[in-house]
Amino acid sequence: MRKRIVTLGEVMMRFSTPGHERFIQARNYDAEFGGSEANVGVSLAYWHQDVSLISALPANDMGRAALRFLKTAGIDTSYIDTQEGRMGLYFLENGAMQRSSKIIYDRFDSVFSHHDGQNMDWDQVFKGVDWFHWSGITPAVSAKAASLCLKVLQAAKRNGVMVSGDINYRRNLWRYGKSPLDIMPELIAHSQVIIAGLTDLANCMDIHESDFAYACEKAKALCPSIQLVATTERDSLSASHNKLKGTLWTEERLIQSKTYDMPNIVDRIGGGDAFMAGLIYGLMHRNKEQALEFAVAASVLKHSVPGDANFVSVEEVDQLVKGENVGRLLR
Amino acid sequence: MRKRIVTLGEVMMRFSTPGHERFIQARNYDAEFGGSEANVGVSLAYWHQDVSLISALPANDMGRAALRFLKTAGIDTSYIDTQEGRMGLYFLENGAMQRSSKIIYDRFDSVFSHHDGQNMDWDQVFKGVDWFHWSGITPAVSAKAASLCLKVLQAAKRNGVMVSGDINYRRNLWRYGKSPLDIMPELIAHSQVIIAGLTDLANCMDIHESDFAYACEKAKALCPSIQLVATTERDSLSASHNKLKGTLWTEERLIQSKTYDMPNIVDRIGGGDAFMAGLIYGLMHRNKEQALEFAVAASVLKHSVPGDANFVSVEEVDQLVKGENVGRLLR
Amino acid sequence: MRKRIVTLGEVMMRFSTPGHERFIQARNYDAEFGGSEANVGVSLAYWHQDVSLISALPANDMGRAALRFLKTAGIDTSYIDTQEGRMGLYFLENGAMQRSSKIIYDRFDSVFSHHDGQNMDWDQVFKGVDWFHWSGITPAVSAKAASLCLKVLQAAKRNGVMVSGDINYRRNLWRYGKSPLDIMPELIAHSQVIIAGLTDLANCMDIHESDFAYACEKAKALCPSIQLVATTERDSLSASHNKLKGTLWTEERLIQSKTYDMPNIVDRIGGGDAFMAGLIYGLMHRNKEQALEFAVAASVLKHSVPGDANFVSVEEVDQLVKGENVGRLLR
Amino acid sequence: MRKRIVTLGEVMMRFSTPGHERFIQARNYDAEFGGSEANVGVSLAYWHQDVSLISALPANDMGRAALRFLKTAGIDTSYIDTQEGRMGLYFLENGAMQRSSKIIYDRFDSVFSHHDGQNMDWDQVFKGVDWFHWSGITPAVSAKAASLCLKVLQAAKRNGVMVSGDINYRRNLWRYGKSPLDIMPELIAHSQVIIAGLTDLANCMDIHESDFAYACEKAKALCPSIQLVATTERDSLSASHNKLKGTLWTEERLIQSKTYDMPNIVDRIGGGDAFMAGLIYGLMHRNKEQALEFAVAASVLKHSVPGDANFVSVEEVDQLVKGENVGRLLR
Amino acid sequence: MRKRIVTLGEVMMRFSTPGHERFIQARNYDAEFGGSEANVGVSLAYWHQDVSLISALPANDMGRAALRFLKTAGIDTSYIDTQEGRMGLYFLENGAMQRSSKIIYDRFDSVFSHHDGQNMDWDQVFKGVDWFHWSGITPAVSAKAASLCLKVLQAAKRNGVMVSGDINYRRNLWRYGKSPLDIMPELIAHSQVIIAGLTDLANCMDIHESDFAYACEKAKALCPSIQLVATTERDSLSASHNKLKGTLWTEERLIQSKTYDMPNIVDRIGGGDAFMAGLIYGLMHRNKEQALEFAVAASVLKHSVPGDANFVSVEEVDQLVKGENVGRLLR
Amino acid sequence: MRKRIVTLGEVMMRFSTPGHERFIQARNYDAEFGGSEANVGVSLAYWHQDVSLISALPANDMGRAALRFLKTAGIDTSYIDTQEGRMGLYFLENGAMQRSSKIIYDRFDSVFSHHDGQNMDWDQVFKGVDWFHWSGITPAVSAKAASLCLKVLQAAKRNGVMVSGDINYRRNLWRYGKSPLDIMPELIAHSQVIIAGLTDLANCMDIHESDFAYACEKAKALCPSIQLVATTERDSLSASHNKLKGTLWTEERLIQSKTYDMPNIVDRIGGGDAFMAGLIYGLMHRNKEQALEFAVAASVLKHSVPGDANFVSVEEVDQLVKGENVGRLLR
Repeated sequence: MRKRIVTLGEVMMRFSTPGHERFIQARNYDAEFGGSEANVGVSLAYWHQDVSLISALPANDMGRAALRFLKTAGIDTSYIDTQEGRMGLYFLENGAMQRSSKIIYDRFDSVFSHHDGQNMDWDQVFKGVDWFHWSGITPAVSAKAASLCLKVLQAAKRNGVMVSGDINYRRNLWRYGKSPLDIMPELIAHSQVIIAGLTDLANCMDIHESDFAYACEKAKALCPSIQLVATTERDSLSASHNKLKGTLWTEERLIQSKTYDMPNIVDRIGGGDAFMAGLIYGLMHRNKEQALEFAVAASVLKHSVPGDANFVSVEEVDQLVKGENVGRLLR
Repeated sequence: MRKRIVTLGEVMMRFSTPGHERFIQARNYDAEFGGSEANVGVSLAYWHQDVSLISALPANDMGRAALRFLKTAGIDTSYIDTQEGRMGLYFLENGAMQRSSKIIYDRFDSVFSHHDGQNMDWDQVFKGVDWFHWSGITPAVSAKAASLCLKVLQAAKRNGVMVSGDINYRRNLWRYGKSPLDIMPELIAHSQVIIAGLTDLANCMDIHESDFAYACEKAKALCPSIQLVATTERDSLSASHNKLKGTLWTEERLIQSKTYDMPNIVDRIGGGDAFMAGLIYGLMHRNKEQALEFAVAASVLKHSVPGDANFVSVEEVDQLVKGENVGRLLR
Repeated sequence: MRKRIVTLGEVMMRFSTPGHERFIQARNYDAEFGGSEANVGVSLAYWHQDVSLISALPANDMGRAALRFLKTAGIDTSYIDTQEGRMGLYFLENGAMQRSSKIIYDRFDSVFSHHDGQNMDWDQVFKGVDWFHWSGITPAVSAKAASLCLKVLQAAKRNGVMVSGDINYRRNLWRYGKSPLDIMPELIAHSQVIIAGLTDLANCMDIHESDFAYACEKAKALCPSIQLVATTERDSLSASHNKLKGTLWTEERLIQSKTYDMPNIVDRIGGGDAFMAGLIYGLMHRNKEQALEFAVAASVLKHSVPGDANFVSVEEVDQLVKGENVGRLLR
Repeated sequence: MRKRIVTLGEVMMRFSTPGHERFIQARNYDAEFGGSEANVGVSLAYWHQDVSLISALPANDMGRAALRFLKTAGIDTSYIDTQEGRMGLYFLENGAMQRSSKIIYDRFDSVFSHHDGQNMDWDQVFKGVDWFHWSGITPAVSAKAASLCLKVLQAAKRNGVMVSGDINYRRNLWRYGKSPLDIMPELIAHSQVIIAGLTDLANCMDIHESDFAYACEKAKALCPSIQLVATTERDSLSASHNKLKGTLWTEERLIQSKTYDMPNIVDRIGGGDAFMAGLIYGLMHRNKEQALEFAVAASVLKHSVPGDANFVSVEEVDQLVKGENVGRLLR
Repeated sequence: MRKRIVTLGEVMMRFSTPGHERFIQARNYDAEFGGSEANVGVSLAYWHQDVSLISALPANDMGRAALRFLKTAGIDTSYIDTQEGRMGLYFLENGAMQRSSKIIYDRFDSVFSHHDGQNMDWDQVFKGVDWFHWSGITPAVSAKAASLCLKVLQAAKRNGVMVSGDINYRRNLWRYGKSPLDIMPELIAHSQVIIAGLTDLANCMDIHESDFAYACEKAKALCPSIQLVATTERDSLSASHNKLKGTLWTEERLIQSKTYDMPNIVDRIGGGDAFMAGLIYGLMHRNKEQALEFAVAASVLKHSVPGDANFVSVEEVDQLVKGENVGRLLR
Repeated sequence: MRKRIVTLGEVMMRFSTPGHERFIQARNYDAEFGGSEANVGVSLAYWHQDVSLISALPANDMGRAALRFLKTAGIDTSYIDTQEGRMGLYFLENGAMQRSSKIIYDRFDSVFSHHDGQNMDWDQVFKGVDWFHWSGITPAVSAKAASLCLKVLQAAKRNGVMVSGDINYRRNLWRYGKSPLDIMPELIAHSQVIIAGLTDLANCMDIHESDFAYACEKAKALCPSIQLVATTERDSLSASHNKLKGTLWTEERLIQSKTYDMPNIVDRIGGGDAFMAGLIYGLMHRNKEQALEFAVAASVLKHSVPGDANFVSVEEVDQLVKGENVGRLLR
């Protein structure tokens, strides 16, 4: 049963050092494409949902390669603008053991940051759409991107589309003169489902609480549109070994997922996006408890797949939830 | 002290995705050669035994490369027929963490499946041979292969050769109209040593028991030639972390090996064949308890070596059994 | 605050098999440069200290590549002689799980082993130098190297330079007719700080004790110059999983570091040199307790970096000591 | 100006040895996807035409990867059936200098060879389509494929679609009991444009002439639907150095293209398909002379691109035709 | 005989696709560092000259890696500023045959473009310096870079340093509101040696002549400081096959070098910088005729070395000039 | 028709830089095994002859890997001694264009150089053998190797075996106090077929002639055993482009082969050994004219195969001699 999902966000080229080499050692880089919202879209498309991405890419071979990546993933690219300019990039050094992973962003002045989405008929875009997903990275990039985000959210609301937002506060963005508190509350007020931890709520909604459920209630009080707040708790024993569980706040109760042990991590980038995608999929096709378990299991499996994208099937996620075939040799 | 061992089985080309890439991501594949019985032979040859393989390979460069691989391993290839036709293949996706490993077989219609071993003087083949090893994969491949397996087993028996059979039930084979129960009991009845777990005994000998010792006694009752039944118990905590122990049933008693913890698995393919080879080696050169410990330790070390073949020496296996030099830096 | 450090030792070319391949499987090798004392120097230079290496390299492209490697690391190479002859080599097979790592040395007859340091004005070399570091590998290589080591130590002493020696007893060296007991005591007697475990003290100082503190007291009695004796205790659960702690003997007390758990080891070669470098750095810039913790944490982080050299910053080591940011994703 | 093109053919997985390694040496293989008609489709889609492929792929990860490859290329895959079975494969050894390139096919018994296209509404498929392309490989694969090809050709004709056929006689196919002369003339009789050299015409139409123009006239006499016959003349000085020119027969005259010198060939596989795609593109958008020059230049550029597919733009082909920017550094 | 050379310019990170892959195909990139003036410096340092680079790099791991690259090359980095900001990048697709090579620059807004060289004592920098080299790329990057270039040139002149400038007109730069004609004549007027072709002279000095000698005379008339004008003539038969010769205009005569045939080009990037370095080296250590031949031969050899840098020795260049050992196997 | 061939020589490990990287750039090396006489043996074994190698290898994993390489090639290794000691090595930098290839040998003090072949029953070795091949490299390595070579030659002669010697004068060997003129004439006097150019004859037989036929006559006069003298003439236009022809002197006449043009060379190492192997094969199975053409064509094809060994079949060589299928795509 296919649903129609639209998301908005920047696609970046990711350069990662091979194996566990440090930046200082690398003489070649693995190249692929990623970005928080695109990662969510790639998961949902892999799970046979209809996904469209609103974005902007440079009118050069880098942009064309990014478009091909999205097409490969089965994402509709007709709302992606191509313009003169540069591609957002990020560089990843994979940690190991006690040594942290490092990301260097090089995304300022990208075509996405200059994209204003003029000439788009947003009501047309949202006709027949079931879900819209955005993240707090977009309004953090530039004033234009923040205003585009608001415009798109308004159109989604007008058309009665369900909206999820991954608050995803990033300290090293927000460099264009506005603070998250200037911008985020209005955006969040257009959303029914948000992903936010305590830090996100503090920075983006000025809610300073140490209890998650109580913080969620305050968020609801500020933005009554909010129906669900989800978060993951990651215990980083080392770069190679984490534990993960998820929590979903509803007005009625707080739902907790199983906790997964994750030694031997292959690639943790995109783990949060896999959770987000799993939650959206689960909320569209399952009940809330199942949605949360699906989201956490999807995120766990992401850690075993190299790259930003989570190439695991619904069946594989379901089996992990049920504890079937875990780590077996399938032939 | 060299022993002469003959084995029968198909050699396939193995294509595996690099690192932990999924099939969907791979743009190149590592290529090597493997097959259950050949893997057993490679181990025994590496341990300075004289090993001959009965098989068939295509008369093309793939077949020639397979022959070279076997020669490298020191295996006598004079009983390998080369014929027009295709090579059996298999594709391997290495799992990690909670994500399972996957194998896609592409072995139907291979030259081995059409091989009838005509024109071979089987009594000549077994002159002076100490041990013959077969597995339940061969009779599962095709009617011709099943009938070849029987013919060869009869010759081995006629010549007083010790026989081991790895029952190795594979659900996705047995597609030529016969069930394992039609074929396997007669083959097993030619063997003194078998490797079989409860599932194998259920599917191939119609023995449905939950107690291993009791099931072995029933097997013995059905096939009185059986002297020893071995099995391994693998606890798959994840694709990256297993535990392993072995059990050897004799008429007198049930022998249990140490249990090994195996986090950080490099390549588990061939782990069972390494156990089989270790058991044969142990039973030829040691007592039963030592044979079982040797077999399990050999299997454990296999998990640290990439590829199907187990390139570890007798000394290295012995050291692991004794707990010496484990994981040290030797210089 | 930069200190000036001089060290003496051979730089070898290291060829290591890729991933976890065994020597028997490898068809290409990763190539870099290393050597116990050079590794110490690379760490100290990475931590913004001024480091000079006394050594000899062949006058060919291998030697030139080694020189470039040292320059990259910021090491002053003006005391490195280039001569006709061969480069010392070593081959590394990375172990995994219960399978040990193996090193094959091919360093006999290298230009370093023939180097006598004639025509050097050693007093000039040590003018303004704060620290000299040597290891027991150099006197183990050849009679010439042993005599060069003594000559350099005497000059360091004459110039009031602090001296550390990593005893580092290697059974497979010492092939030129002398035993460590003939040579090492005199060299150790020029040193204030030594790294030595019980085996080192037994083989190089004829001290046969099972208690470390008591053995250190005996060493002090034999060589009154000794002020500090450090050692690491490594618990090799497997090639992929070690535990590590450090101990520092002073005349007043025995200092113990935290114990670190190290599953998922990337490359343990150079772990001891990273400890040595950390200790020197710590003793130059911190107090003794801090120096020991810095040394152990530096060594732990080394295990996450491929290659001989320890490319981790002072900040990263300090954070591990404090338990901050361990294994996180830094962006 | 987009045209709608449909093509029919098998997509195979291609495994090629890296660099210039021989099969006997290779330990890993580059993997991608190709097939004569798919290659034509990939070119046309790269040139912004709407392309659909009629085909069948296995319902496993290999088939899914092939589908992703086609989507990446922008090809509509809605007429591709997925079924249980195996993927057609081919193995490529890249020649060099005087040493020939070699291909080993392993495509028998593939799902495509069993595909009968039942349940497809072919008239629906061809509604609004401008061009249909087939090749002589499809009817050579199996009786089912030959009958599917005829069925599709009849539908194309019924719907007034322009048809091109690449005769592409392959000696090593045609193993199902029919000769090309039994099958091909009827198929050719549904086509307006064919690619055929003298050998093709001899084997598939029983026309034995040494003069191309005269042979084409005979072909026209046999199959009056034929309007154009194209062919390329390749002078193989070595595997690394060819010369190429094209010829286009029309009823009025014989058109010859420029001859291109091609030393330093990177990958010649797909060179013929690039010509075919260029010819279709040219005949749809240019005049006949321009179409031929476009086709030959597209084929020349293909030789510089690794893989089956011809990733060169219309602009790049046009510039080569005009002799602009050839081999320059563009920045 | 060592000379002291200073140069000024941006060091960029270069990402190139492996082999002959197109951007659209690449999934990993070779990474190294380059930049016109740095390339000149690397050559001169490789030839045992003392070279300092004036530049700016980001204060992150990319910048640190670039610094290490320069140190490896033996370049003095004490005049390189590190600042917050981004690294200039460029992406290279290696052409082959008739297919051109492509470069995509991503260098706007780099720390170098914002570098104003404040707080530097330029007179101090040029004390004892023999030669200063700049190129027309620096003033094309930004107004700040242009003004820095002028400031540095004035200091060089004040200190009586010989100056060379590689005019190197780049159409796709000069985006900050000034035209080359506004800026370049004043800079050129500080130089004694320039590299310029007819296009450079047209765009940067408004000299529109078709005869090189006559154009040079006009340049001299405009900028009387000019003593020598050099240029190379490259005949691009294809991306894999060029011919190269050099011309040196002096007030007395026009010197022509030998013409070299260059089939089988490995990497042409940096070929012009190798010529420039060769010319500087030659003019410092040889006569003018020899300097030109040295420069062209150095450039030819560069085409055989992967990367921006020209790792060939003075002896190798001299041997090519003399036609000795060309293409032999040296052992 | 199989012949039995014995050869004597050192097997070295070859480390070559990838692609066209210089030693100074390489961070990994391709590793394989080679050596002049072993290369000859590998060719002959590939052509289905029975080949045994007399040699010595170290008793470590390097030696074991070399043994496996020889077994893979089908060479009988029962006359190879394994001893404590080091493996001979060589490092190869592949040239390109005008840049020469470079080899750095690191073979002194290898186990082969210390091998005296004691305890071998040489008459037993040569029973039933058709041909013995040696080269001038062995006596150049050490006094022991020279004396072993003589001992083996005497046994070959005693047993009526045909003998070929590749004079192969290497200036950088012969370091043990003897000159070639002291040693080589006696060895040559045991041979019927020699490969020698004018330089070889000058250095090893003191024949200083500029005419090859006349020099051969003088050689015959000095060593009347000589029946045939062969040589190749290589015209090195560049490292990437050579021309090659062969000459065979017989007492009756001088035979000249075709000249082959060889642009786009992949790997020229082993080209001379391929010629030698071709000549031996040809002289055993064809007439003299055919033998020479076979030898030259085998050598030409070697240049297209990476590595020391010439993996081309008799059929491929024959086709090149006939000019069939040259550079075609075979499918």
